[in-house]
Amino acid sequence: MKNTIFTFKGDTPKYKQIYEQFKLFIEQGDLLTDEQLPSIRQLAGSLQVSRNTTLMAYEQLVAEGYIRGEGKKGYFVNELEPYIFQKSSISPDKKQITSVKPYSVDFRAGAVDQTHFPLKTWRKISNRILNLKESFFYGEPFGEVNLRQQIAVYLLQSRGVKTDADAIIIGSSTQQLLLYLGHILKDDVSSIIVEDPGYDGAREAFQLNGFKLETLAVYETGADFSSLERMKSRLIYVAPSHHSPYGVSMSIQQRHALIHWANRRHGYIIEDDYDSEFRYTQQPFPALASIDSARVIYLGNFSKSFLPGIRLSYMVLPQPLLHRYKNQFLHFESTTSILSQLTMAKFMEEGEWSRHIKRMRLVYKRKMQHFVSVLRKEFEQNISIIGEQSGLYVLIKVHLKHSEEWLIHRASCHGVKVYPTSIYFIKNNSDEPMIKLGFSNLSCDEMELGVELLKKAWM
Amino acid sequence: MKNTIFTFKGDTPKYKQIYEQFKLFIEQGDLLTDEQLPSIRQLAGSLQVSRNTTLMAYEQLVAEGYIRGEGKKGYFVNELEPYIFQKSSISPDKKQITSVKPYSVDFRAGAVDQTHFPLKTWRKISNRILNLKESFFYGEPFGEVNLRQQIAVYLLQSRGVKTDADAIIIGSSTQQLLLYLGHILKDDVSSIIVEDPGYDGAREAFQLNGFKLETLAVYETGADFSSLERMKSRLIYVAPSHHSPYGVSMSIQQRHALIHWANRRHGYIIEDDYDSEFRYTQQPFPALASIDSARVIYLGNFSKSFLPGIRLSYMVLPQPLLHRYKNQFLHFESTTSILSQLTMAKFMEEGEWSRHIKRMRLVYKRKMQHFVSVLRKEFEQNISIIGEQSGLYVLIKVHLKHSEEWLIHRASCHGVKVYPTSIYFIKNNSDEPMIKLGFSNLSCDEMELGVELLKKAWM
Repeated sequence: MKNTIFTFKGDTPKYKQIYEQFKLFIEQGDLLTDEQLPSIRQLAGSLQVSRNTTLMAYEQLVAEGYIRGEGKKGYFVNELEPYIFQKSSISPDKKQITSVKPYSVDFRAGAVDQTHFPLKTWRKISNRILNLKESFFYGEPFGEVNLRQQIAVYLLQSRGVKTDADAIIIGSSTQQLLLYLGHILKDDVSSIIVEDPGYDGAREAFQLNGFKLETLAVYETGADFSSLERMKSRLIYVAPSHHSPYGVSMSIQQRHALIHWANRRHGYIIEDDYDSEFRYTQQPFPALASIDSARVIYLGNFSKSFLPGIRLSYMVLPQPLLHRYKNQFLHFESTTSILSQLTMAKFMEEGEWSRHIKRMRLVYKRKMQHFVSVLRKEFEQNISIIGEQSGLYVLIKVHLKHSEEWLIHRASCHGVKVYPTSIYFIKNNSDEPMIKLGFSNLSCDEMELGVELLKKAWM
Repeated sequence: MKNTIFTFKGDTPKYKQIYEQFKLFIEQGDLLTDEQLPSIRQLAGSLQVSRNTTLMAYEQLVAEGYIRGEGKKGYFVNELEPYIFQKSSISPDKKQITSVKPYSVDFRAGAVDQTHFPLKTWRKISNRILNLKESFFYGEPFGEVNLRQQIAVYLLQSRGVKTDADAIIIGSSTQQLLLYLGHILKDDVSSIIVEDPGYDGAREAFQLNGFKLETLAVYETGADFSSLERMKSRLIYVAPSHHSPYGVSMSIQQRHALIHWANRRHGYIIEDDYDSEFRYTQQPFPALASIDSARVIYLGNFSKSFLPGIRLSYMVLPQPLLHRYKNQFLHFESTTSILSQLTMAKFMEEGEWSRHIKRMRLVYKRKMQHFVSVLRKEFEQNISIIGEQSGLYVLIKVHLKHSEEWLIHRASCHGVKVYPTSIYFIKNNSDEPMIKLGFSNLSCDEMELGVELLKKAWM
């Protein structure tokens, strides 16, 4: 392992690259069970990074069980259970492995198409906003009223949600809003029902506020609501329009059943409507909040449909919660840039937002169709494609008797970054590994290249 | 009270305007003890606002003891203790009072000087940033590395704080960072020492996480640290460079004493260095974090020195806390716009930031001198001026035997908005009322007009 050439590439944090490299060393047997790792100081020195960076990498490895710290003695490699890593099937192609390669194709979900971004319009509006007097003040704690009004209009038109600007709270991310909201909800409720699999980031926000989790199993075909009756909590977090990660939508019957359940229990449904804009086969289903606004906390954001980095999210609260929220957070400053808020408000007011959404729905629909056809052509019966009706990614269930780790690792050896779905699961495991492939910012050529490389890597 | 003409003005939220109007009615005796208020529905209808708005206004009045709710019967006026409101001294100048007037001069702290803002440079850089590929992705959870590197350089040069980019966490506001940090700290510590008076927003963030508060009395001349020994907590929140609201700085002896205390207790000091840039009489004192980074959690932001609405704050964490924080929040999305972060990083890298700070220090120094001289000339011995050495506001202690409420109210009748300091106090009351006057976004003419009107209102 000594004298390895290690080159940092791309914008992945260095500690992650170090972590991934060491994981590889251990999986490949370059580092043996009980072998000592270089000290934090040594490694930091030889890689020319801070000690903190190396420590972060090591801690991640400790957390995942690859290594252990033995106090002042240092860090040592743990014995690995062979079935996890399927060592034998990893090709010992050292040259490809020992330096962290830049990826030729990154199937990352959570980026947007840059080529169709309305750059000129956005610039023009945001430059105008910088001339306004109000841009030089602190903003309203719950968000600028102009933006809240525009969101109210949009929610009514496109999601059937009747609300007014006063009931909308602007925040910087779904997790930040869930964390703040949790401070209100935890006075009444000690546990929450979450989907399994489901969005891991939301779970973490609930757990930080001390909520216990009950899990509702979700399958490719949807959730089984009959188990809800056995659960203790009267609070549930769901993504009815586009389940994460399966992409399945709740039927209208399921929506009514859920509302009915919440009413009987005097509970609340947290509806995360995170990318309802991109549905390709039919009109989006109406939001739960359009059926019964008294029992639904509605969450939306501009990350998928506009720009993830702008950090602009919102929630609509039912009246009693709204008052408690506003009382509690009245003296908290807004967490969202007033410039972004005012620019987005103007962008919506001038009709640019709805034009953008319509345009992007078409762009992404074409990309989805192309991507799915390429995947089918290359992999035929070796994969199943899940979630092609909507959203900016698909899952592929890979019928090749390899583990998720192996698939990701092999892809990475061929310069393709693909993503796990195991992070979304709690107890309800998938029978075969599923890989998440985002395509929103890839060109058709990049998609084709990526799929071709994946085929080489896996088959 | 019926048929009052009520006009909403300016950008103050409507519920606040309603709340202020009703407070006035009660203080003036337009609404008598036990008189019933209009119902939420009636008032909302007659003012053409949402019920939520009127409910918020009423709830604020309930919270402050002006009125009480009696369930379905409605809201009723409470009996007021005469000394609080000094009813007799309020002029019954009805015409001026019954409509909410727009303010001629608003001495609001927390805005910045718009005329000297580097608009062209900022625009140029932010337009360039929108062309970058990384602007179309989610950002790093703890902030963009470019910005963290620039902040590290700035902290070393201007505050003597040696840190590296890895130890810096970018957030959207001081309160958001304190709230997130509190989730880490509360595992170890159940109470926190806060300054009295001190920043109310920080207290609320601590209380949301269940921290009990112990109070350290602070006077115009500074805090008395001898009481620290009697306190139970090993966690303290202070603003050593510019106390809020007194503006006093801790001496170097006090700084060392505080560090010594934290070391003995194995505790932490949260140092809020919120507007250290603007010190007019001498060089800024070095930050606590420059003396002992292992015991100090350092907080800074760009709200006072650049733009409050941009929502860009940061903290520097000591190593053990840093790892815990990063482990806990590794999967939380950033709360701050990647566009603002990358623009600010470039702005700093190109030297624009330090040029801006130098320019603004001069601008604000001149404003402060002018403001203080006008206040002295008009009020002579009737006020004492507190905190003129630094910052973007002064306090004036008013020796006229009137309450804070009366002073604010009378000012408002003359079209001048001034701000209370009582909100900063917990137990340690001020002997005479103190009014907070911000001047950062006012011209010399506006300051003069404001002071003239205040003199008319008060004397």
